[in-house]
Amino acid sequence: MTESLGELLGRLSALKGGEVASYIPQLAKADPDDFGIAITSMAGRRYKVGKADTPFTIQSVSKPFVYALALSDLGPEEMLRRVGAEPSGEAFNAISLEPHTGRPANPMVNAGAIATTALVRAADPGARSARILDRLSAFAGRRLDHDEEVYASESASGDRNRALAYLMRAAGSLVDDPYAVTDTYFRQCAVRVTAADLAVMAATLATGGLNPVTGERVVSQLVATRTLAVMATCGMYDGAGEWLLNVGLPAKSGVAGGLIACSPGRFGVAVYSPPLDAEGNSVRGVAALTEMSSRYALHLMHVPVHMTATVTDTVRAARSGREHDPARTAVLDARPIVVIGAQGDLEFTETEQLLAAVERAAEAAPGAIVLDLTAVTAVGAGPATMVEGTLKDLERRGLRVAVAVQQPFLDQVDGPPGRWTATRDEAVAWCEDRLLEDAG
Amino acid sequence: MTESLGELLGRLSALKGGEVASYIPQLAKADPDDFGIAITSMAGRRYKVGKADTPFTIQSVSKPFVYALALSDLGPEEMLRRVGAEPSGEAFNAISLEPHTGRPANPMVNAGAIATTALVRAADPGARSARILDRLSAFAGRRLDHDEEVYASESASGDRNRALAYLMRAAGSLVDDPYAVTDTYFRQCAVRVTAADLAVMAATLATGGLNPVTGERVVSQLVATRTLAVMATCGMYDGAGEWLLNVGLPAKSGVAGGLIACSPGRFGVAVYSPPLDAEGNSVRGVAALTEMSSRYALHLMHVPVHMTATVTDTVRAARSGREHDPARTAVLDARPIVVIGAQGDLEFTETEQLLAAVERAAEAAPGAIVLDLTAVTAVGAGPATMVEGTLKDLERRGLRVAVAVQQPFLDQVDGPPGRWTATRDEAVAWCEDRLLEDAG
Amino acid sequence: MTESLGELLGRLSALKGGEVASYIPQLAKADPDDFGIAITSMAGRRYKVGKADTPFTIQSVSKPFVYALALSDLGPEEMLRRVGAEPSGEAFNAISLEPHTGRPANPMVNAGAIATTALVRAADPGARSARILDRLSAFAGRRLDHDEEVYASESASGDRNRALAYLMRAAGSLVDDPYAVTDTYFRQCAVRVTAADLAVMAATLATGGLNPVTGERVVSQLVATRTLAVMATCGMYDGAGEWLLNVGLPAKSGVAGGLIACSPGRFGVAVYSPPLDAEGNSVRGVAALTEMSSRYALHLMHVPVHMTATVTDTVRAARSGREHDPARTAVLDARPIVVIGAQGDLEFTETEQLLAAVERAAEAAPGAIVLDLTAVTAVGAGPATMVEGTLKDLERRGLRVAVAVQQPFLDQVDGPPGRWTATRDEAVAWCEDRLLEDAG
Amino acid sequence: MTESLGELLGRLSALKGGEVASYIPQLAKADPDDFGIAITSMAGRRYKVGKADTPFTIQSVSKPFVYALALSDLGPEEMLRRVGAEPSGEAFNAISLEPHTGRPANPMVNAGAIATTALVRAADPGARSARILDRLSAFAGRRLDHDEEVYASESASGDRNRALAYLMRAAGSLVDDPYAVTDTYFRQCAVRVTAADLAVMAATLATGGLNPVTGERVVSQLVATRTLAVMATCGMYDGAGEWLLNVGLPAKSGVAGGLIACSPGRFGVAVYSPPLDAEGNSVRGVAALTEMSSRYALHLMHVPVHMTATVTDTVRAARSGREHDPARTAVLDARPIVVIGAQGDLEFTETEQLLAAVERAAEAAPGAIVLDLTAVTAVGAGPATMVEGTLKDLERRGLRVAVAVQQPFLDQVDGPPGRWTATRDEAVAWCEDRLLEDAG
Repeated sequence: MTESLGELLGRLSALKGGEVASYIPQLAKADPDDFGIAITSMAGRRYKVGKADTPFTIQSVSKPFVYALALSDLGPEEMLRRVGAEPSGEAFNAISLEPHTGRPANPMVNAGAIATTALVRAADPGARSARILDRLSAFAGRRLDHDEEVYASESASGDRNRALAYLMRAAGSLVDDPYAVTDTYFRQCAVRVTAADLAVMAATLATGGLNPVTGERVVSQLVATRTLAVMATCGMYDGAGEWLLNVGLPAKSGVAGGLIACSPGRFGVAVYSPPLDAEGNSVRGVAALTEMSSRYALHLMHVPVHMTATVTDTVRAARSGREHDPARTAVLDARPIVVIGAQGDLEFTETEQLLAAVERAAEAAPGAIVLDLTAVTAVGAGPATMVEGTLKDLERRGLRVAVAVQQPFLDQVDGPPGRWTATRDEAVAWCEDRLLEDAG
Repeated sequence: MTESLGELLGRLSALKGGEVASYIPQLAKADPDDFGIAITSMAGRRYKVGKADTPFTIQSVSKPFVYALALSDLGPEEMLRRVGAEPSGEAFNAISLEPHTGRPANPMVNAGAIATTALVRAADPGARSARILDRLSAFAGRRLDHDEEVYASESASGDRNRALAYLMRAAGSLVDDPYAVTDTYFRQCAVRVTAADLAVMAATLATGGLNPVTGERVVSQLVATRTLAVMATCGMYDGAGEWLLNVGLPAKSGVAGGLIACSPGRFGVAVYSPPLDAEGNSVRGVAALTEMSSRYALHLMHVPVHMTATVTDTVRAARSGREHDPARTAVLDARPIVVIGAQGDLEFTETEQLLAAVERAAEAAPGAIVLDLTAVTAVGAGPATMVEGTLKDLERRGLRVAVAVQQPFLDQVDGPPGRWTATRDEAVAWCEDRLLEDAG
Repeated sequence: MTESLGELLGRLSALKGGEVASYIPQLAKADPDDFGIAITSMAGRRYKVGKADTPFTIQSVSKPFVYALALSDLGPEEMLRRVGAEPSGEAFNAISLEPHTGRPANPMVNAGAIATTALVRAADPGARSARILDRLSAFAGRRLDHDEEVYASESASGDRNRALAYLMRAAGSLVDDPYAVTDTYFRQCAVRVTAADLAVMAATLATGGLNPVTGERVVSQLVATRTLAVMATCGMYDGAGEWLLNVGLPAKSGVAGGLIACSPGRFGVAVYSPPLDAEGNSVRGVAALTEMSSRYALHLMHVPVHMTATVTDTVRAARSGREHDPARTAVLDARPIVVIGAQGDLEFTETEQLLAAVERAAEAAPGAIVLDLTAVTAVGAGPATMVEGTLKDLERRGLRVAVAVQQPFLDQVDGPPGRWTATRDEAVAWCEDRLLEDAG
Repeated sequence: MTESLGELLGRLSALKGGEVASYIPQLAKADPDDFGIAITSMAGRRYKVGKADTPFTIQSVSKPFVYALALSDLGPEEMLRRVGAEPSGEAFNAISLEPHTGRPANPMVNAGAIATTALVRAADPGARSARILDRLSAFAGRRLDHDEEVYASESASGDRNRALAYLMRAAGSLVDDPYAVTDTYFRQCAVRVTAADLAVMAATLATGGLNPVTGERVVSQLVATRTLAVMATCGMYDGAGEWLLNVGLPAKSGVAGGLIACSPGRFGVAVYSPPLDAEGNSVRGVAALTEMSSRYALHLMHVPVHMTATVTDTVRAARSGREHDPARTAVLDARPIVVIGAQGDLEFTETEQLLAAVERAAEAAPGAIVLDLTAVTAVGAGPATMVEGTLKDLERRGLRVAVAVQQPFLDQVDGPPGRWTATRDEAVAWCEDRLLEDAG
């Protein structure tokens, strides 16, 4: 991993072009040659190359995290009522309020970000700033702080953001004092991070809200999912569509040169390189993520190629290792037990394959069906529901059903005792007992 | 599957509201109670409930498929140069041309769809209409036809679309005759399909371009990926952001009541129900997809929970079943062979776990490393590259490396003969031989 | 006049800059050094210098004249219902239709001009083109014709205008065939004129609709007034406000280099010079009109300085030259006749001054008041009403009133016989008779 | 005048509809039945009917007057560089800043009005408020004051205006503290006036900047002209075009129910009636002005009808009353003196008529030309220049020229002594002397 990143970093260091942000002197001081990349995996392993420990201000990269925080406070309906989720196709500082309601278009443009900051629950502006810093720290897995100089400069040049806040209060979409809210927003933007920090923060969204390094659940799966969705459509300003076309990952950039992307269920990545393109995104950051997406096949719409079958074997008339007398044997001969084995991860596609095999087996009207899922390595929440539905349907049709799964799965189910077992043989034995009971 | 869909259809049939499109009489004749749902899985299995075989006109649902066709003809760079990929945040018939270039915003709004139609390679308008019908048929897996009455009516009321075409020719983003191009577009919209057809068409995009029913490769993986990305950001008109937030699937709707969604790598789904909401999307279609996304956990940003380990076992000093003399045994004792076993699908996350284990093993400076991947069920293209890179790196560091994989994988590799084997024992044996050679 | 214009022409010939329109080859062929100025006065006198007889196509300068024609056909309410009168602050070819109605913003942008052309009453497109040419000829005072080459070229490059027409039919603000209407519009733009022609056309609007050269009433005063008002706010495209600020005259320019301005009640002026500025207005035309407005104090908002009094004399107890006996003399002594003389033009201001003097005289309760207006040179319609109202009020208060005016005015009034006279003495005599009757 | 206004007031009192502004409680308290009209003439005479002395806050009617003040401070070029003059076609509180410069569209929308307020020269905000109040008082001709309650309420609900100010400082088009500038603006809007005051203020603009009641020159003619031009195109918000079409007078309305209009060179009028239409203009105010414009023929584009000739007589060979000997007589016979008499006001049209007569006379090559302008009542600045030019041209061609004018004109000229005289005979005598000298 590290070599792969190192090779990428070395090659893209040669990429020149772009301008360091200069609207405040503190940002203009950044070294245009600084370049670092960091990745944090789902397992919490951390990889970094180059200037991944150089501190800079988080700026707009704070937006998705503060959105996740406000979304946790308000819930999805209320959040959507206050801040929209539509790509505005406009620049980051666009004036894009919905007619009549004054609702900002989305939380990734400044107006929406300021409104979002104001929605973070807190007793007063000081407490709000403290809470935001605390939660950003939870995402990062270490205690962060503010860059007071950058904060002071942002505040001194923040009239456009103040204008947005006054506009929103005039339109009724902001109730707090506009001056105080923008001040909190400037503090939020001035939180100091490194690429290594941002990679952990991005990974926390990519895992569904669980910081993979500290193990802390920072936000719920629902909040993480919605935050990633908003980043996917609104995160890259007016180039959101082309970004999703070419890179295919939820992402967010900041004017200080930070850029994060999240590969749901895979990892979080962060790049730090101050020179920005015309849209305000880090030039090397965009190049690095474009190449990584292609190299590792990370595009959200990319379809992985499955080369092996989910269903491994089907035994038409199985018997447990136990001995039976002839009467019982006759019963079991009349109502055979079909065993279907499966392997690998059960997501929608695999489950659908498995259940199609189950249905074919059930059509021959056996006495029982055993699913041997002991070689199955994962079951998604949706697929689990699909399996459950099929089991109930089979039982309605008079069949006996048992399932063998690995211990971690077994710990989670609470079906009728005995139906869920740890081995194929136990499952078959349980079915035999039921069929014999049925025969009375 | 079918029961699950049947339950959904029954429940949502009670959902009233919305208006059948009435801008032309032919559409107004549709029965507002018609309601059908169809799913086609990656394996080509087809499920359908309700009026899934009732014919209607494809209308705007044709847009992503004709986009895929033009994209195949032009390649991604040229296609993007001609038609953008940015969500316009506007209604389907918006006038949204890029200043200076006249490039339409994206292929899902009418202007972009008309420009896209004009880019389909053909000798003349008649041939273009024929080719479009032919390729839509390939997506559907059966021969489709036109609804001539709807075509005639669309043409009679098509002034706004003609205006868009004239505007584009004036702006230089369209070179063909505007009147003829819009005529072709009206024919494309009047292609007659059923929900069952649309499900196969959607599934063909979801599989990466391979029709799962007929087995025909209709477009490339790259074309399918990009088409899905454009559907994700631009497919639901001015509600694209909220759709991706709530449903999280690439989708496209048509004014006749059709609505498709694609779950990449899982399935294609289509709903037919004529009453439309204010944005022009099928009311029951939106409800059905929202519920399916939630029920089956299909949201693109949803993170599946992996419950079992990828790495199954690590043997610190493995030996093959073969006998060795003491001298050879001493050589092998000095340079032990470490075996690492893995199971399940190897996507980015699992591969990263596996390679982290490999790296830990390599740090103890053994003589060889054997990867036992015989329980591995799938390897993504990106992960395969990651594994290859690590193997080469280990060899550069003086270690011997062998890999045991299932036969389907073995058929695909063309590494040094012998290094790739079908069993763990063979791999260990191969390493023993190499280590003995090294020892001279 | 001619020397003054000649001096201006000579000086501004040195003004370079601007580009000859080149979107069609026929316009690009124009000689950038061609420069002519023409003025037509209210009395129909014509002044011209430079290339004032060089033919070119009228282009957008046709817009106000065709608007006047359609306005004559429809009347003001219906015309306003079909085409607005708001400055759009946009370029000439902007797409500026009112939401919901599709009504174009004003008749000076292309969309509004095309809609206006379609409103000209005619049996068919051919008749409409013929009628437009006929009425433009009436404005010009000579038979005009088309430049067929320019027409053909405009038609070949007219897609944007066709798009506007299709958009309007789609929106319901145009009912005719869009292709045919734009064709008529292209013919209208290709009418061939000279600066000398345009000066007569402009003068016809400036006189209130009467061609001052031919004496033909081309349109009504109401139509001319409204046409000038629309030119004032919408005639110079997106620079209308600054134009009215600096030049202060209704104006209209064309892409072939023509530019007209109207000074209501004074004259019409036309300039021909092909190089255009960024807004599409003739560079030398703008410069010439700016200077003329300033030099001759033509700004609509400029307040003329009146240096002499309106009221010339007041005679407290006037007598006619006739002899009266003592009894009668006593009657007249008791009810004296006050004469108030006035001079010059009676517009609002002068009339208000005059009537204030009348009011002061009436407060002394004389027997009669005589207005001697024989030195008055003009009376506006509004002021005439004001005078009438005061006369009636005086009579209601018991005073006798007579008015002496010059013969042209006398020919127009139809008051009680005798009260309106041609000399001061006759008026006084008439009052004496009435006062004696009253006493009698 | 008063009866005419009284009749109008009585009739329009029956006009209901519209809503009293209610965004702050102080405005909502206004009596919807209050209705007053006031006119101030060029001579400073004041007419008023109804509630013309009821105080209310000036609100947006302050905008043109403060614009005139800032324009006086900065001059026309700098003023235009800071605040545009284009109609924005938008509501009064639109966000309409020019891209790149941040320049507001015009001084009649709030953004432009706030920027204009900031341009009034003053040492600090307090001094600026004091100076604005002082100059508004000069326009009104009496000491005005603030309504402190309205001011406090406006300030409490002024977020949108603050937003505009912050936006402008962010864009670089405002340098002052946004909070302080909007405070000054709120004070300006809270100045208390009556309809009678506003009529004097409007009349001061209509006279060219001279308060006709107090005789104070408040602003220059240039400033008044430009202010009226901006009112004409931008004063009635998004209905500016239709207003100019129907009413044809520069005007400005305020949300408290005030509405002014200016008839240049004629009068200022003000209406007070609180109920507002959807555009925020006083319902009865609009109705009253529409009717007055029509009744008194005040439309700027209306062409007055001149019924008498400017040129009264032409004498082909004039002689003074003096005796000459035969030799001298022969000289004068050989070079006859032509006298041309004129009457009335000499504006552009009349002057052009006069000079055309002069030119015809000059073509017969006489010795001298005498212009007898003793019956002329006014000469505009432009026409004076035209006459001067012609005189010089005649002298260049060898003719002698003299002019007889009334004493007020004579006091203003500084030509060669003797050439300008008070009577026709003196002028002829002067020419005789010159012709004899020439022969001498």
